[in-house]
Amino acid sequence: MDFSAAQLAGRLGLAVHGDPDARVSGVATLARATPSQLSFLANPRYRAQLASSRAGIVVMREEDAAGHAGTALLARDPYAAFARAAALFESREAAAPGVHASAVVDASATVDPGAHVGPFACIGARSVVEAGAIVGPGCVVGEDCVVGAGSELVARVTLVRRVRLGRRVLVHPGAVLGADGFGLALDRPADGGEPRWLKVPQLGGVVVGDDCEIGANTTIDRGALDDTVLEEDVRLDNQIQVGHNVRIGAHTAMAGCSAVAGSATIGRYCLIGGGAGVLGHLEICDRVTVTAMSLVTHSIREPGDYSSGTPLMDNRAWRKAAARFKQLDGLFRRLGALGDNRG
Amino acid sequence: MDFSAAQLAGRLGLAVHGDPDARVSGVATLARATPSQLSFLANPRYRAQLASSRAGIVVMREEDAAGHAGTALLARDPYAAFARAAALFESREAAAPGVHASAVVDASATVDPGAHVGPFACIGARSVVEAGAIVGPGCVVGEDCVVGAGSELVARVTLVRRVRLGRRVLVHPGAVLGADGFGLALDRPADGGEPRWLKVPQLGGVVVGDDCEIGANTTIDRGALDDTVLEEDVRLDNQIQVGHNVRIGAHTAMAGCSAVAGSATIGRYCLIGGGAGVLGHLEICDRVTVTAMSLVTHSIREPGDYSSGTPLMDNRAWRKAAARFKQLDGLFRRLGALGDNRG
Amino acid sequence: MDFSAAQLAGRLGLAVHGDPDARVSGVATLARATPSQLSFLANPRYRAQLASSRAGIVVMREEDAAGHAGTALLARDPYAAFARAAALFESREAAAPGVHASAVVDASATVDPGAHVGPFACIGARSVVEAGAIVGPGCVVGEDCVVGAGSELVARVTLVRRVRLGRRVLVHPGAVLGADGFGLALDRPADGGEPRWLKVPQLGGVVVGDDCEIGANTTIDRGALDDTVLEEDVRLDNQIQVGHNVRIGAHTAMAGCSAVAGSATIGRYCLIGGGAGVLGHLEICDRVTVTAMSLVTHSIREPGDYSSGTPLMDNRAWRKAAARFKQLDGLFRRLGALGDNRG
Repeated sequence: MDFSAAQLAGRLGLAVHGDPDARVSGVATLARATPSQLSFLANPRYRAQLASSRAGIVVMREEDAAGHAGTALLARDPYAAFARAAALFESREAAAPGVHASAVVDASATVDPGAHVGPFACIGARSVVEAGAIVGPGCVVGEDCVVGAGSELVARVTLVRRVRLGRRVLVHPGAVLGADGFGLALDRPADGGEPRWLKVPQLGGVVVGDDCEIGANTTIDRGALDDTVLEEDVRLDNQIQVGHNVRIGAHTAMAGCSAVAGSATIGRYCLIGGGAGVLGHLEICDRVTVTAMSLVTHSIREPGDYSSGTPLMDNRAWRKAAARFKQLDGLFRRLGALGDNRG
Repeated sequence: MDFSAAQLAGRLGLAVHGDPDARVSGVATLARATPSQLSFLANPRYRAQLASSRAGIVVMREEDAAGHAGTALLARDPYAAFARAAALFESREAAAPGVHASAVVDASATVDPGAHVGPFACIGARSVVEAGAIVGPGCVVGEDCVVGAGSELVARVTLVRRVRLGRRVLVHPGAVLGADGFGLALDRPADGGEPRWLKVPQLGGVVVGDDCEIGANTTIDRGALDDTVLEEDVRLDNQIQVGHNVRIGAHTAMAGCSAVAGSATIGRYCLIGGGAGVLGHLEICDRVTVTAMSLVTHSIREPGDYSSGTPLMDNRAWRKAAARFKQLDGLFRRLGALGDNRG
Repeated sequence: MDFSAAQLAGRLGLAVHGDPDARVSGVATLARATPSQLSFLANPRYRAQLASSRAGIVVMREEDAAGHAGTALLARDPYAAFARAAALFESREAAAPGVHASAVVDASATVDPGAHVGPFACIGARSVVEAGAIVGPGCVVGEDCVVGAGSELVARVTLVRRVRLGRRVLVHPGAVLGADGFGLALDRPADGGEPRWLKVPQLGGVVVGDDCEIGANTTIDRGALDDTVLEEDVRLDNQIQVGHNVRIGAHTAMAGCSAVAGSATIGRYCLIGGGAGVLGHLEICDRVTVTAMSLVTHSIREPGDYSSGTPLMDNRAWRKAAARFKQLDGLFRRLGALGDNRG
């Protein structure tokens, strides 16, 4: 599978700089590309690599191509254009339509003839797998679920119950959607005996909009009464935890190991950094960025960037600063007293 | 399935306020409930919603019902009472007793005739599945395990080896119990060669008490020599990590993504917040609350609430505060010198 | 299975102190060992337990054995020697060579006759399972993967595609290697319409060196263009997240729930504490220790210990200190002004 610069330009709606007949058969970074590979220059930091790159064709901005001796494809957004180009070189076997002989499909479930259900998959009562959907090996789709048209459960995904995926949703291995939300009431016996936890039934579901992506080993619990909701084009990385009744707005992206506690609402076009946490019952407005490992402890009503934590330090220096942190209030009080004296 | 107020009152041991013949066929929040649904008022914050709620019956405290025109069920603890009521409306297919034709059960394993073993499940050598237990689809129960009476492995759960679950334990999909603890010795060759990691055998097991719940993708390693232990009624949310030889006291609840390192001991009735961490070889006494994303770095001997971290700030302001954190010790030293002069 | 002190000494290359005919049939901690069990004393903190221990044989340093009345095995590194001894007592059924009747192996895959492929396992196109390797129950090995000689996928492990494991690699249940890296370009339509995420194809793979161990529910994404790489003898605990194009140096160990964002490079012999995070595109040199729940926000070029965060405090005191943290910059500015006046 190879393409000329002119062919790529035509497919991607870009202009060619240099030789329209230059051909490439794969993609690579600027540093590693060979003359038969396509690369890209998006971040100005890598401009220095362009001169020494052996890449046969490079996707870049028009201004970067000015002095470039090689062949380029000119794009307003080189990274997005490269993403589209790279997809042309991604060879993946298409999953053949049909249900594997080993799969266990409940009599009341509906699997579209154009869908693929792989080995050792289970489809539960009243669930629906729509046209072009893929349920990979070892997936468990419980009761009352929908796998929308063109969606893919890669492998070993679990939809526990009442999980409705839109179209073109991609769920990576080990993800668990629709498990019981963590709902507990501490039940104190009237006789003064030891309190025990009482499980609160989780009667809601999970609704995932079109074009969402859900990372490996990510968990999204179903709602207690209403549903847990991901609007369209939400992108979740690996090992993210989404509690019951959370709502995540369209086009929001969350990095690995972040977590949102129950009933929090996150707006549209938010970026939640890796390992960041959002407490329950909060609201975060649109276009908020939370930096890595920060904890959101109150609602956020203004777009912008938010952080918590302290900077990384040499451990010896950190120990001193950490000890001083404990003394901070006393210091302020002492200085406040001084300050009063000074007016 | 519907119930009158009088029927619910009888089943739950509550008093009726208003119309004992009012009927409901489901449950919902105050904001969304229709006249055929049951709701509840537990948190005084939602009292304002009561007036406008269309709910047919509302579980509430007696004092909240005083001026209430509709039908109410009066409870000392409305949330717990609602949890019990909601369970009446939860329709779940009972798992039929028996072993699915596809399941692989070792000849030395014992499966009670009243237990359910689902498709693609494996039961290993010498393991026991007791009466009324459910081993869901795709679960792997290794060697020398016990799934106690009435316990449920929802789907795709792994008990690696020597895992003994008590009665009525509920384990959500993707959880892994009894994997090797993370035990390593750095082996320095006598000849001065490069040190390499040497794996320390993990010869203990995992013991889980009655009525515990273990969340999706949570991991609990087996002990190195002794067992890792969860006492009864411990409640673990999703994606929690419990290291080898940890002991967690009865009725303790841990929120999502929290973690406990090896050989730590946590008391009874503790609440560990989301994303919080507990270092190894520590002891936390009974009735300790650790707030979200805090790190417990030393033993805790007094009940109470504990925290670490810094508050969420606008990123620009945070950067300044964070830079100042690094200068804290210097500031204190300078001020200390000043303070000395002032007596 | 039991051994005399002399037999153990011979096998492990140690000297005997006391009775060479003392026999043990198992291992335990100093506190719990019976006269028929072997124990060890490595940490001086436990020296007091030695006097009261009933252990039949204890592995210890020569200097600790001086006044010891019982039988000891003398080792330069008692913990490593004990690890070797304990392995002698670990009885595990060997996995029989062969492919389970239920497994689904692609016609183009190669499974060595000496390998074991368990129930409900899938081996994808062009993948190779080498001699002595074990693919446990419910594992999914996708396309173009290698499970090297003597490696073990314990159960329910997923290798998505282009994952190449070296020899003697041990992967615990629920781990997912080779899922799509989290590569997204925000695609802004030229017509000013709403931007949407565009998926960047992930064309690289994952390469795991010999003797690595990968914990339960850990995730390692495959690279975007180049590979994600773990060098030999890397040890990853449970629930670790490794982003695309990360490189982790030989003999580095990472504790549970730590995470490394895309394209970061970690050196050799590093120790990454539990829940710690490493931002993307950074470099950490050899022999760096990062303490638990710290966030590495910049490259580290000097070996040593590094930390971030604040110490655990009583919540009431913490609230005051946290409020003061927000006022830090103002305080410094005020004091700076004072300082200027004082020269």
